[in-house]
Amino acid sequence: MTKEKLRVGILGATGAVGQKFIEVLDGHPWFEITALAASARSAGKRYAEAANWIGSSAIPPRIAGMEVVAAAPDLDADFVFSGLDSSAAGEIEPLFARAGYPVISNASNYRMAEDVPLLIPEVNPDHTGLIDFQDRGDGFIVTNPNCSTVGLVCALKPLFDRFGVDAAHVVTMQALSGAGYPGVSSLDALGNVVPYIAGEEDKVVTEPNKLLGRLTEGRIDPAALRISAQCTRAPVLEGHLEAVSVRFPGKVQAEDVKSALRAWRSPIADYGLPTAPARFIEVFEDARFPQPRRHVGLGRGMTVSVGRIRPCEVLDVKFIVLSHNTIRGAAGGAVLNAELLAKQGRLARRAY
Amino acid sequence: MTKEKLRVGILGATGAVGQKFIEVLDGHPWFEITALAASARSAGKRYAEAANWIGSSAIPPRIAGMEVVAAAPDLDADFVFSGLDSSAAGEIEPLFARAGYPVISNASNYRMAEDVPLLIPEVNPDHTGLIDFQDRGDGFIVTNPNCSTVGLVCALKPLFDRFGVDAAHVVTMQALSGAGYPGVSSLDALGNVVPYIAGEEDKVVTEPNKLLGRLTEGRIDPAALRISAQCTRAPVLEGHLEAVSVRFPGKVQAEDVKSALRAWRSPIADYGLPTAPARFIEVFEDARFPQPRRHVGLGRGMTVSVGRIRPCEVLDVKFIVLSHNTIRGAAGGAVLNAELLAKQGRLARRAY
Amino acid sequence: MTKEKLRVGILGATGAVGQKFIEVLDGHPWFEITALAASARSAGKRYAEAANWIGSSAIPPRIAGMEVVAAAPDLDADFVFSGLDSSAAGEIEPLFARAGYPVISNASNYRMAEDVPLLIPEVNPDHTGLIDFQDRGDGFIVTNPNCSTVGLVCALKPLFDRFGVDAAHVVTMQALSGAGYPGVSSLDALGNVVPYIAGEEDKVVTEPNKLLGRLTEGRIDPAALRISAQCTRAPVLEGHLEAVSVRFPGKVQAEDVKSALRAWRSPIADYGLPTAPARFIEVFEDARFPQPRRHVGLGRGMTVSVGRIRPCEVLDVKFIVLSHNTIRGAAGGAVLNAELLAKQGRLARRAY
Amino acid sequence: MTKEKLRVGILGATGAVGQKFIEVLDGHPWFEITALAASARSAGKRYAEAANWIGSSAIPPRIAGMEVVAAAPDLDADFVFSGLDSSAAGEIEPLFARAGYPVISNASNYRMAEDVPLLIPEVNPDHTGLIDFQDRGDGFIVTNPNCSTVGLVCALKPLFDRFGVDAAHVVTMQALSGAGYPGVSSLDALGNVVPYIAGEEDKVVTEPNKLLGRLTEGRIDPAALRISAQCTRAPVLEGHLEAVSVRFPGKVQAEDVKSALRAWRSPIADYGLPTAPARFIEVFEDARFPQPRRHVGLGRGMTVSVGRIRPCEVLDVKFIVLSHNTIRGAAGGAVLNAELLAKQGRLARRAY
Repeated sequence: MTKEKLRVGILGATGAVGQKFIEVLDGHPWFEITALAASARSAGKRYAEAANWIGSSAIPPRIAGMEVVAAAPDLDADFVFSGLDSSAAGEIEPLFARAGYPVISNASNYRMAEDVPLLIPEVNPDHTGLIDFQDRGDGFIVTNPNCSTVGLVCALKPLFDRFGVDAAHVVTMQALSGAGYPGVSSLDALGNVVPYIAGEEDKVVTEPNKLLGRLTEGRIDPAALRISAQCTRAPVLEGHLEAVSVRFPGKVQAEDVKSALRAWRSPIADYGLPTAPARFIEVFEDARFPQPRRHVGLGRGMTVSVGRIRPCEVLDVKFIVLSHNTIRGAAGGAVLNAELLAKQGRLARRAY
Repeated sequence: MTKEKLRVGILGATGAVGQKFIEVLDGHPWFEITALAASARSAGKRYAEAANWIGSSAIPPRIAGMEVVAAAPDLDADFVFSGLDSSAAGEIEPLFARAGYPVISNASNYRMAEDVPLLIPEVNPDHTGLIDFQDRGDGFIVTNPNCSTVGLVCALKPLFDRFGVDAAHVVTMQALSGAGYPGVSSLDALGNVVPYIAGEEDKVVTEPNKLLGRLTEGRIDPAALRISAQCTRAPVLEGHLEAVSVRFPGKVQAEDVKSALRAWRSPIADYGLPTAPARFIEVFEDARFPQPRRHVGLGRGMTVSVGRIRPCEVLDVKFIVLSHNTIRGAAGGAVLNAELLAKQGRLARRAY
Repeated sequence: MTKEKLRVGILGATGAVGQKFIEVLDGHPWFEITALAASARSAGKRYAEAANWIGSSAIPPRIAGMEVVAAAPDLDADFVFSGLDSSAAGEIEPLFARAGYPVISNASNYRMAEDVPLLIPEVNPDHTGLIDFQDRGDGFIVTNPNCSTVGLVCALKPLFDRFGVDAAHVVTMQALSGAGYPGVSSLDALGNVVPYIAGEEDKVVTEPNKLLGRLTEGRIDPAALRISAQCTRAPVLEGHLEAVSVRFPGKVQAEDVKSALRAWRSPIADYGLPTAPARFIEVFEDARFPQPRRHVGLGRGMTVSVGRIRPCEVLDVKFIVLSHNTIRGAAGGAVLNAELLAKQGRLARRAY
Repeated sequence: MTKEKLRVGILGATGAVGQKFIEVLDGHPWFEITALAASARSAGKRYAEAANWIGSSAIPPRIAGMEVVAAAPDLDADFVFSGLDSSAAGEIEPLFARAGYPVISNASNYRMAEDVPLLIPEVNPDHTGLIDFQDRGDGFIVTNPNCSTVGLVCALKPLFDRFGVDAAHVVTMQALSGAGYPGVSSLDALGNVVPYIAGEEDKVVTEPNKLLGRLTEGRIDPAALRISAQCTRAPVLEGHLEAVSVRFPGKVQAEDVKSALRAWRSPIADYGLPTAPARFIEVFEDARFPQPRRHVGLGRGMTVSVGRIRPCEVLDVKFIVLSHNTIRGAAGGAVLNAELLAKQGRLARRAY
């Protein structure tokens, strides 16, 4: 790669997602944070004062002392990560693209836009080709999927490639960190499960078909899976657990699913992307696994865990998926997207 | 009913289920605890010493001072509730039936036995007729279903009656109390979801068809629903939450399900059973409900709550069910079974 | 008492404390809720719509349909309970007193005011005499102490009366419900203890001396205990646990403390107040007790539990105290205050 | 140090502490695990099968495949770490010492034995001199303190050196992992605090005086602090939080304590021990800190955190201490002890 690190700006740097970007990028071999952007209220303050840091490791010292700036497109950065709330992302992200910045966004606003890649590098790395058809200025926008979409699609991809998939039924038990900070009240969380997360189920139903779709002639031809999602919030800190049942067009058995997951080889396996896990999917034989508390950190939060693969009496095969919602499902996924783009030569030093 | 209360013995009185029987029977208008039976280790001790009481209300004073006796069939009781572990129930329950005691059991051993009623009074009260064909001595055995079966079947019954049901897909998030005491280790429970409960899914798959079956000529002709269950353990104290999707033989919409649940009238509504809740099924419109911590106590733990009734993209209609696992799903359900039997004249004062 | 129930208004009726007032007053034999007052934003709505009800029992049906009114002193009520935030109570409570309403407040604003009784009926029932010297209009203000003060003072009172007390050192582990709703973020609460609660320690240091003081010549002569408090927030729903160490002026041993607590007789024991618990203080011998989850509900949340009474190597005697923070420590304590005032003839039907 | 790594055996390798030893030693630059010893039941099995691994990272692959052997003194190791239960340690540890093995033990059995060093390298590194007077064969036994003692003593040491300490009063809120696995029942842990831990308070009262004592003429002359401990179990996974109040012989203020903690320099600061944290004590100014979930991992679990240093109204100064109970308070502490011994030349390759 480049000898010199690419300079990175973070939009929404003081929020929960922004903080996770800072954690994931700490010590990154290719990227270096050079700008922390947030709302006018934070601008001008030292980062350590502006952010209510919620992480369990300390703020990296170099970051703690940096001055927060306003989220306007004159940032000292070669590209930006966006951890903006969707209330702000809709307006701000296009401004940055227009001003020539590649915008690697975790926000939901442009995920389903026709000209914007919705990207999981191991799943649809070729979708970055959509950038060539994107007309949003000298920069562009690339997005990663919703945190509850990611685990599902990563587990489905090897099955989709091998067998095709007709339908997927998923019930999620999602971690509290997915709601940001302060997010869920402790009185709703402790000893409770909330069977509803506003807007979540729609994302799980729509995003997979774009992710599993095919890029042809400058547009994504979506896949046609029928997906049903029931999304719940469980008292877990990190890690979305999902109970998935799949219906295939042909006869597929649990053992077939197991071997397909084990045999599947990521298309980016040889790219040497720093954030890509050694093992994309970990398949468990122990019926008690995977569990959020024990396995969420596998592959530094980038491995997707699958267990309890067995026949489904109503559809065909069912299993459990676990993925890290704020790493694989948010900041880590976005950083991997940026690494893929860098590898493809789509990120470069900006001239000033 | 009888002017004089029926005398009740509790088998396994010191265990978690036995304790719940004591709580539920405290102040019962028809039944009075006259015998507390447990293992040889506890026999001879005062109950307050023999039991490691885990409840949040105190041991009823009269019970605290009673002497625990061995679980042998010379109990001073007109009938017995069995809260025995399945390791003991298989042998001990038939001894009591043989000795003339009606045995109202919460254990799993005889639930699927051909001659033993598996009973939810609101669902299949006529199945007590099976007792007439049971040949286990002067007494008999009656069982209630597994705690995770109960909520599902209570919600399905009105739909089964009105529309028929082809298939049901259920993912459970079950409370810790379902595992007894000490049960689940806190290191497995806190901030975690365990995607496996040994033996649980089989029960959820098989029991509903017996419960929804038809009694003809001294046997149960089972229903033929295809059921798929994924059972998980969540860090909740009381209350099993279930995400259910249903496929119907004909065209049934979410609104039809809602009105069927609301219109359905329990066949025992006029029986005046003390433990029967005023409302068997509570249907919620608020998408955030039901929740274990807030709604598990409705109808003193005997009401089954249903919410989020909406179309399912893969099957037909999906919804959330909540039921109290140690009351409706265990001790309360068994007491209601006994009340039904008393009402039907199948329980009587025993001569000595 | 009065044949006819006294009419009660609740200020701040939609908040967490207001909701608890509604729960505690449901079915009250002396008092009947006739007015629900809240902010302008809620005024005009049905209560069920205005309040985000967080309780685990349903809103009492009669209350659910009542219209919320603005918190202005033309309420249809003989007296009012105030569950107002301290940001509003400072201004609104005196308006009601001035307009002739007795104000039974849970807010902190006037607790330490010289002319306002700070009241625990079992501890200092004679302090209501201060009302005769209060010059705030035809009505008056009476307050109950902070939720973390209550358990401490209830446990100290019998010791203070018998032995005197020089100093008390207390470390609290306080429940989440004490912070209201949404209150503490689940990300701060789950699997964590927060060693700080803003403003809390000051209240625990100052309020006990007023509560244990003596009413003379129209003023409270405070006691002179030295108190040190360290207040922490633990992931518990209801129930403040406190580790207390006490230094006495003379030689007092653990057994003396135990017998003093057991022998002590509440001055209001014969008053027949409906909310007063049968047992004011419950002393446990089992070293594992009291525990929030198991014992917080004793005496319907009005009993104070004490356990592990033993020598302290640094002060003299140490023990554990548990009290229900939203019942004994808030709404239940205020209702008991009103019952005492009613018994003393200080509450009456208001003419209009 | 030695070019070649020292060979390490772990006694009790399959238990909770043994597992933590494996985690802490993974990739250790000086030590290499060569023997995993456990009970007869586990001997002969592969480690991955013998152990119910509870950690959140995977078993290091080299360890997973090793064969577990019986805990008898013919282990292929230069020295051993003991994670044995106290029921086994009393007998087995002396056998190993007699057979020539240095035994670095986390068990409580010999902590208070007159000839056995109780060691925290930053606190009393010279106490290893006691080994020269120990007559237990060619090997020896060295111990680390109880997990709830460690945080207290680390925070007291700089104060003891600078001002002397008369008395310390501590209330602990201890993590569930301190009870091992399965340890505390989830029904006791969830939403609860248990105000009692069997045997714990005695250890906190006695161990500090040995740790702060002076080695003279082959024995430890203990310090004479009066210590009072109230130990509770809170629903936290890792990290003991302690509310400490201290009385000094002279006039010492909160600011003095703060600067003493900040100025104090560890006697082993220059030893280059791999497990020693860069910062032994971290002092927080933010009143909300330290918190178990956020700060337990500082210094890879070896830093002790102190916050809320302020005047105590009853003793002199009070503050909050947090330490990692299974790293600093168990396996990590023992490994640091071994590193100190290696540095001092007290560990060597064993001849065979």
